[in-house]
Amino acid sequence: MGIYYGIIYGVIIVSLAIIYYLFKYIFSQEKGSKEMQEISEAIREGAMAFVKRQYKTIGIIAVIVLVIILLAVYFGNQSKGADEAFKIAWHTAIAFVTGAFCSALSGYIGMYMTVNTNIRTANGAKSGLNKALQISFRGGAVTGLAVTVLSLLGVTTLFLVFGGSSSDDTLIKEAPSLIVGFGFGASLVALFAQLGGGIYTKAADVGADLVGKVEAGIPEDDPRNPAVIADLVGDNVGDCAGRGADLFESTAAENIGAMILGVALFPVFGVKGILFPLVARALGIIASIVGIFLVQVKDESKDPMKALNKGYLITTGIVLVFMFFTVKNMLSGNLPNGTEVNYMMLYGCAVAGIVLGFGFVWLTNYYTSVECRPVKEIAKSSETGPGTNIITGVSMGMESTALPVLFISLAIFISYKLGDSALGGIANGGLYGTAIATMGMLSTCAFILAMDTFGPITDNAGGIVEMSGAPEEVRNVTDRLDACGNTTKALTKGYAVGSAALATFLLFSAYLDEVKKIIGKPLDSWFSVDIGKPEVFIAGFIGVMLVFLFSSTAIRAVGRAAQYVIMEVRRQFKEKPGIMDGTEKPDYASCVDIVTKGALKEMVLPGILVIVTPVLVGILLGKEAAAGFLMISTIAGVILALFLNNAGGAWDNAKKFIELGNHGGKKSEAHKAAVVGDTVGDPFKDTAGPSLHVLIKLISTITLVFVSLFS
Amino acid sequence: MGIYYGIIYGVIIVSLAIIYYLFKYIFSQEKGSKEMQEISEAIREGAMAFVKRQYKTIGIIAVIVLVIILLAVYFGNQSKGADEAFKIAWHTAIAFVTGAFCSALSGYIGMYMTVNTNIRTANGAKSGLNKALQISFRGGAVTGLAVTVLSLLGVTTLFLVFGGSSSDDTLIKEAPSLIVGFGFGASLVALFAQLGGGIYTKAADVGADLVGKVEAGIPEDDPRNPAVIADLVGDNVGDCAGRGADLFESTAAENIGAMILGVALFPVFGVKGILFPLVARALGIIASIVGIFLVQVKDESKDPMKALNKGYLITTGIVLVFMFFTVKNMLSGNLPNGTEVNYMMLYGCAVAGIVLGFGFVWLTNYYTSVECRPVKEIAKSSETGPGTNIITGVSMGMESTALPVLFISLAIFISYKLGDSALGGIANGGLYGTAIATMGMLSTCAFILAMDTFGPITDNAGGIVEMSGAPEEVRNVTDRLDACGNTTKALTKGYAVGSAALATFLLFSAYLDEVKKIIGKPLDSWFSVDIGKPEVFIAGFIGVMLVFLFSSTAIRAVGRAAQYVIMEVRRQFKEKPGIMDGTEKPDYASCVDIVTKGALKEMVLPGILVIVTPVLVGILLGKEAAAGFLMISTIAGVILALFLNNAGGAWDNAKKFIELGNHGGKKSEAHKAAVVGDTVGDPFKDTAGPSLHVLIKLISTITLVFVSLFS
Repeated sequence: MGIYYGIIYGVIIVSLAIIYYLFKYIFSQEKGSKEMQEISEAIREGAMAFVKRQYKTIGIIAVIVLVIILLAVYFGNQSKGADEAFKIAWHTAIAFVTGAFCSALSGYIGMYMTVNTNIRTANGAKSGLNKALQISFRGGAVTGLAVTVLSLLGVTTLFLVFGGSSSDDTLIKEAPSLIVGFGFGASLVALFAQLGGGIYTKAADVGADLVGKVEAGIPEDDPRNPAVIADLVGDNVGDCAGRGADLFESTAAENIGAMILGVALFPVFGVKGILFPLVARALGIIASIVGIFLVQVKDESKDPMKALNKGYLITTGIVLVFMFFTVKNMLSGNLPNGTEVNYMMLYGCAVAGIVLGFGFVWLTNYYTSVECRPVKEIAKSSETGPGTNIITGVSMGMESTALPVLFISLAIFISYKLGDSALGGIANGGLYGTAIATMGMLSTCAFILAMDTFGPITDNAGGIVEMSGAPEEVRNVTDRLDACGNTTKALTKGYAVGSAALATFLLFSAYLDEVKKIIGKPLDSWFSVDIGKPEVFIAGFIGVMLVFLFSSTAIRAVGRAAQYVIMEVRRQFKEKPGIMDGTEKPDYASCVDIVTKGALKEMVLPGILVIVTPVLVGILLGKEAAAGFLMISTIAGVILALFLNNAGGAWDNAKKFIELGNHGGKKSEAHKAAVVGDTVGDPFKDTAGPSLHVLIKLISTITLVFVSLFS
Repeated sequence: MGIYYGIIYGVIIVSLAIIYYLFKYIFSQEKGSKEMQEISEAIREGAMAFVKRQYKTIGIIAVIVLVIILLAVYFGNQSKGADEAFKIAWHTAIAFVTGAFCSALSGYIGMYMTVNTNIRTANGAKSGLNKALQISFRGGAVTGLAVTVLSLLGVTTLFLVFGGSSSDDTLIKEAPSLIVGFGFGASLVALFAQLGGGIYTKAADVGADLVGKVEAGIPEDDPRNPAVIADLVGDNVGDCAGRGADLFESTAAENIGAMILGVALFPVFGVKGILFPLVARALGIIASIVGIFLVQVKDESKDPMKALNKGYLITTGIVLVFMFFTVKNMLSGNLPNGTEVNYMMLYGCAVAGIVLGFGFVWLTNYYTSVECRPVKEIAKSSETGPGTNIITGVSMGMESTALPVLFISLAIFISYKLGDSALGGIANGGLYGTAIATMGMLSTCAFILAMDTFGPITDNAGGIVEMSGAPEEVRNVTDRLDACGNTTKALTKGYAVGSAALATFLLFSAYLDEVKKIIGKPLDSWFSVDIGKPEVFIAGFIGVMLVFLFSSTAIRAVGRAAQYVIMEVRRQFKEKPGIMDGTEKPDYASCVDIVTKGALKEMVLPGILVIVTPVLVGILLGKEAAAGFLMISTIAGVILALFLNNAGGAWDNAKKFIELGNHGGKKSEAHKAAVVGDTVGDPFKDTAGPSLHVLIKLISTITLVFVSLFS
């Protein structure tokens, strides 16, 4: 197995070198005019202040949870003897702390890169589109690579330390279960990072828009709006810090789930089955690096989206090749009955996952792009006012759940059947097929994450250019990049939901494996979760309800925090009448401060709800009910997230479509209606929706950690 | 068992006499002035024309489904021999036709009563509140009683004819399964009635509001609005015809489900266990009749809602007493092991159901009443515009799912555990406990339905009074009744969802019993529906997706149909400039015609979606997957319906709260924002939400009918 560790750590070292190179590249770029630097500095300060305070709050929560974990795991595992219980407890605790720390670090890196790349992108825009694209995308790439590498490094090292290289098979087989705490720590931090950031960004955005655009009639990013810096800060703390932590925990949790399943297949593949997810991830990083360096526009008039798509396609192509050799090398061998494993079928599972990733990106594009029917229909319905705009948007969002669900169902079905038949129908074979599919889908994740972080960087750069009064050709460059960034942000959200859905089955079966161990059933036995039992049915009911209640609290938090911003901006306009004609400077800092306090206060309740409910269900209704809770809440969570993300994205772009001159263009009644839709969509797509991705994974990891407590 | 049939038919005959008496009472009332009669006549004509065309469309669909049923059931049951298969097929077909006919008749009665009672209520309002309340509520009572009696008559008679009084136990035990077609026929018609009516009523309402109130600035029900008659027609075809068919199929499907469960308990209770649901229903009708006659206001200044609540309370009290004796008499005896059945525990199940009904009505009131926090918060958020109004409303609607789900979960849990322990832990004992709870909850249904139909009658009466220019004190009476009717409409929706949720378990287990019979397992064995199997998980995924997709198509249908109305009204305002100053008469009929065509066209797609999907899932993924589909789509359907109904109701009342003079009152910016929320909420609460109740039951009955086809 030395060779596999060699590959993994080799990739990590190479990636770190590349990250260092990209980092140097970005910091060697000019920072532009004094005005630009001033604005950028204000954004940087606001973002850092928020993250500092946010991490303090999260830290307190994490310490409380840590104590609970130690006690719960220790006392829950007493049946295994005090020594063993103690070992499990402190391993889980260490893993939890490491996961939480790495997740927080990922979020910090994402934000740090954005606040330092935005100004350089703004300045780079003076030299043309390609320069600005290079800077902004490479800024995103640092985050994308750093987050993925950190996840790989954390999981691999913990596995090694907890017995992964032991010569004792028992120790190796125990190790994956001991690192579930890593996934839980990561999800916990990610949930609060995404929630707090999501509330911040949208409260500032909604607030700034409602008083700025609608009431005062000044354009977006106008320096006269006191909430404009808070709005730009929001892009960083929500889209970057939040999403960084989100995708960190995704990759970690899914890796761990796949490794636990690998244990179940130990008789077939030995340790290779456990290491496969890590090696697949490592090679995916290499593919992403190649893709990242190929992103450039030669012709300045071309759509930058094409360059990004090219990079994504190439990454996917390389992954397809790498995967083949990885599967062939690691997942072949003989079944217990002597017949050979059909590795081509297992490769088919990986392909199904990769295709699903593509499919999700494509479908999200259809439902949120200005060129397709849904957005156009919403724009048209805006002619008859905000009421019909909202009705059409809600309806489109609900419709947009249909095809993705069919795609996921197909991918799960195909990979399950292929895995089952490749492994001769042995227990867990089908599940391992879905694990391979998940690894396939997530192998391009470093590239996807780079595209995602690119979005807020260009958004911010555009804001800086606008506020500093740069010439129109520079604005034109950042506008084009910003439009492109909006698309990539929407697409990666689709990708994130898709991977969450595919991974459910994986994390669910990891949970069942833990249950089997606790009740002393062999891993290759079948543990059924019977929805015909009232406890399981009730647990499912409560699971779906939790998804709705959580979304409710997240959305309302934005509404409440936005109200504070609105009141504050109105106060400033009233007390400083000189703001509107430019003779007085608005007080940006007080707006930033108000949103920070509001967002942090509002994130606590929904967060605690998500932590407490699954544990209570498990304790009161039992292990089987907790499994039903996990599965059914995931189904509802994925579908509600699709609805929220796509409806929000479609409203956003319907407004943009009208601004392009359709249905009366800017300032028309249709535009006013579309602005209302956009406002409603904001907390849908940037607060509740993305937080639901994290919620799904958090429920999986929390049930894994606390399973020993369940009755 | 003769005594039980005696009670049931006795109650039916008494009820028919009461219905005749109430009918005579209403038709002996004066019809009022010529203007009033003209308007009422226009509404009557429009409603009748719609229902005629709607029933033609539904008839065509029903005939196609009938042929499919005959073939599917015949060929699906070939394993039982050609003769037996033929018998099952034609029994199911007869039951289907009867159910469909009775459901259509129920809808027709509801509508017929409303269009004839509205004018008499309007005229009665001249003599004061009590008179108007008496007329309108008794009009509703005719519908409520007729629908419930029809359901009881249909189910009992089919059961008798199909072998219910046979001396051969085998024939008796087969009979309940043969009448599932009755439930399916009823649900099929109810789905299209509710959908078509729901689309009609809201397209007309939204259309009329958007051009009338918002664009032209004329008040609601203003005769200058060309869509005003269509709007009033809508109240009849949606709220009356639709809801009548909806509650008809509810009571029928749940009775049948409980009877099938009774078969499983045949060794304990004999035929009494099968007849119990029918006797409980019959006695509930008697209790409702007493309650209906007690509804009156002595003091004209008092809130009419108090009178209705008093009637509801008395009905519930009588039901509590009746239930005790019914349970004691019918559900006692000895278990196979010789110990006695604990009938007090079974009575506890009934009480749990009755309390749940109360709880739902109370919770719905909390979330939609102008006196409670949710509505007030939405009204306050309207100050910052339609965006925040929508955000707050969505968030409140999502929140409103939480407590009802906990209530349902508790009721299911308690009744299951009580049933299980009352029946000494024998198979299906727990389930029979939930069946008793369902019967308890539904025993007040005739009264609830009377309250529900009362809503549109007063709404219409108010419209007639407004349009005929009656004096203010008359308007004041109808306004008070209308406000009261809005509350009862919201409450009964909560009741309908609650009963659907409680009955799921019942219909699910009826389905499992059918599966057991087909695969040759004994009825007291356990058939598990394992969500850990990929087919079941995928089916659940698709089930939740169907609920969203269906809601999407239903909501969009309203948006589309409303657009036609808006265009038509704008055209009339443009071509007939005299309408606004009263010199020209608008063309009401063309509006009515346009909505009729639009609504009927739009109802077909979502309807077919609901019929085809469960059958396809069963055929492609198998019986167990279909069971998962049934359960998980029901969970999602109940929760989404709660969200849609409550958000819609809260928006409606937030607007009313502002109109009472809060937050700037009528014509303020807050009011404009609240009108947008009301517009959005309309298709939520009157089209998609109520159609989801029917969808849930339709999925249950369709899987029951087609189970023999599933792989």
